[in-house]
Amino acid sequence: MSCSRGKVEISTRVRLDGPEDLAKEYTPGVAEVAERVADDPSALMRETVKANSVAIVSDGSALLGLGDRGPAAALPVMEGKAALLKRFADVDAWPICPVSRDPDDLVRTVKDLATSFGAINLEDIAAPRCFTVERRLHDELDIPVFHDDQHGTAVVVLAALHNAMKLTDREPAGTSVVISGAGAAGSATARLLREAGYERIAVCDSQGVLHPGRDLVGEKRWLAENTNRDSAVEGSLRDALSGADVFIGVSAGGLLGEDDIAAMAERAIVFALANPDPEIDPDLAGKHAEIVATGRSDHPNQINNVLVFPGVFRGLLDSGAPRVTSRMLLAAARALADVVADDLTPQRIVPTVFDDGVVDAVAGAVAGAAKED
Amino acid sequence: MSCSRGKVEISTRVRLDGPEDLAKEYTPGVAEVAERVADDPSALMRETVKANSVAIVSDGSALLGLGDRGPAAALPVMEGKAALLKRFADVDAWPICPVSRDPDDLVRTVKDLATSFGAINLEDIAAPRCFTVERRLHDELDIPVFHDDQHGTAVVVLAALHNAMKLTDREPAGTSVVISGAGAAGSATARLLREAGYERIAVCDSQGVLHPGRDLVGEKRWLAENTNRDSAVEGSLRDALSGADVFIGVSAGGLLGEDDIAAMAERAIVFALANPDPEIDPDLAGKHAEIVATGRSDHPNQINNVLVFPGVFRGLLDSGAPRVTSRMLLAAARALADVVADDLTPQRIVPTVFDDGVVDAVAGAVAGAAKED
Repeated sequence: MSCSRGKVEISTRVRLDGPEDLAKEYTPGVAEVAERVADDPSALMRETVKANSVAIVSDGSALLGLGDRGPAAALPVMEGKAALLKRFADVDAWPICPVSRDPDDLVRTVKDLATSFGAINLEDIAAPRCFTVERRLHDELDIPVFHDDQHGTAVVVLAALHNAMKLTDREPAGTSVVISGAGAAGSATARLLREAGYERIAVCDSQGVLHPGRDLVGEKRWLAENTNRDSAVEGSLRDALSGADVFIGVSAGGLLGEDDIAAMAERAIVFALANPDPEIDPDLAGKHAEIVATGRSDHPNQINNVLVFPGVFRGLLDSGAPRVTSRMLLAAARALADVVADDLTPQRIVPTVFDDGVVDAVAGAVAGAAKED
Repeated sequence: MSCSRGKVEISTRVRLDGPEDLAKEYTPGVAEVAERVADDPSALMRETVKANSVAIVSDGSALLGLGDRGPAAALPVMEGKAALLKRFADVDAWPICPVSRDPDDLVRTVKDLATSFGAINLEDIAAPRCFTVERRLHDELDIPVFHDDQHGTAVVVLAALHNAMKLTDREPAGTSVVISGAGAAGSATARLLREAGYERIAVCDSQGVLHPGRDLVGEKRWLAENTNRDSAVEGSLRDALSGADVFIGVSAGGLLGEDDIAAMAERAIVFALANPDPEIDPDLAGKHAEIVATGRSDHPNQINNVLVFPGVFRGLLDSGAPRVTSRMLLAAARALADVVADDLTPQRIVPTVFDDGVVDAVAGAVAGAAKED
């Protein structure tokens, strides 16, 4: 690993083999492109790297399972993601790891960068700062902003849930869903499930179920008021799980025991996605639940954002969409679920990113939704 | 040119052909690198893209010969430069074109970016803002900052001048030099020539020779007080040129006529570097001057920064130097001059970037100077 120089590098897309090439691609030739862009900024998306590039932006404040390790520790993670974006979706991404923790600084820096990128991938930024930053950039930039911990997770969970519901003969409206975790992933998943027709959602943080009677602000206040309809559920995560149809864990390892899963409804669906240690051991959960998924590669049904973000960025760049919309996320989830339609089993509710058609299906769905928007 | 997607793209440096590769290069494998970096930030320069990468930063406020065309117009130019850095020096560079014109914003943005880059190339930023920004970043960052319009130009001019002086049997101390242009290029050239032992330098802006009697501030004030020793020269550019040994034009096309060159000393040296139109037609200048150089590829002696910046960044990254020093710039100029030592003629005072050894010579000189610093 010494002097690996990282996981991505630059390649040239032009010939530079002699003085004529230099005159064409650099001075004086490049002045022509510069003049065209100055006259018509839309030429940026046709004639420059902006057409196919993404800035992967993280301050390292909520890094993988590691927590707050800062921007330097974030760099190898984000360049790994850049490698994935190239490998799976031919997207040119560069990691940017800002030092400042001030949301205003983060917004300003990303806006200052946006000229040279066609889209922004926010990553591993702690809640609730991530909500402020994402919403401001969504409103203030003319290129799409996708916070993978929010939207990527929500899409892959919804896709997996769609297939799990099919296998267990459920419909969204009547199904009770408990989400453990009210950070970026939990919040965005709750929001997207609502958009997809789920009406009985209870979101739990470490203090138990979010409900309007609790002293909450910001995103959690919104969740308390817009999930858990009629404040039907109060109390602890365990209380909420009793009789529930679906558990979605995006929180911390080992929160639950076998009894908690046994107390869920018949034919329960358990997504224990905390990494590297799931909320409940998947083998124990499997004794009682009909469908079990984790974030781990060494168990069936790995629910991982890599199924989503490459196709999403391919679709965003192909369509030139100015922003990410719910329509895109719902379409992406449906398309991802449909990739395994023909060989759907309780052990295969999602494909792997190496399966044919995954990235194309998601990209096509996003680009299609962009046209409708 | 439609949908060219620009001049550079990303390539992966790792295999991602199956789930094992994914586990190694992304989650959970990347957490190991993140932990190492969190414990020891110097690992960034061994194990991530920071080891070999450069941000090319321009606000487009002084673009080539085009003037202030803004950050969008700068993007194709900067990505062209990124292509050159890869082609000639295997450096991975990404263009960044900030929107804000506030020097404080520019400094803050670049500092916020610096985690993921091993060096910064400032480019085409208008004077005098470029001086403030470059000096603050030089002082506040722990990676080197090279403003090509200043330092790249100064180095290639000094290299060419070194060889021209050899051909005309001159020594720096006694040689009178007139520089036309007191912006980024003119100022940095004057400063580097002083470091190289030139004692008789007069710098002219559009109002004539800079001297302490003029009402000047900032960089121009410094130049007035530290060049033009004993305020020997006043008046216009034309006045200054009378009897001068060397003319260095980094200003605007067509400023001078044949008579002005005829009024210079015997065996005069004329570098008319304004692009695309030189300060004086090189054929007219050649009637009176012994050595003539321009910035154009269609005349002999093309003095172009591309002879310098690829090697400089290669040397900076190879040495891990935290900043650019005068010692590096002087060493780079000498090394570049020496590349043509064996076949030095009045028509070949500098090599071309396609000549063997140019980039290696500059890189070696910079890395060697970094060791001595």
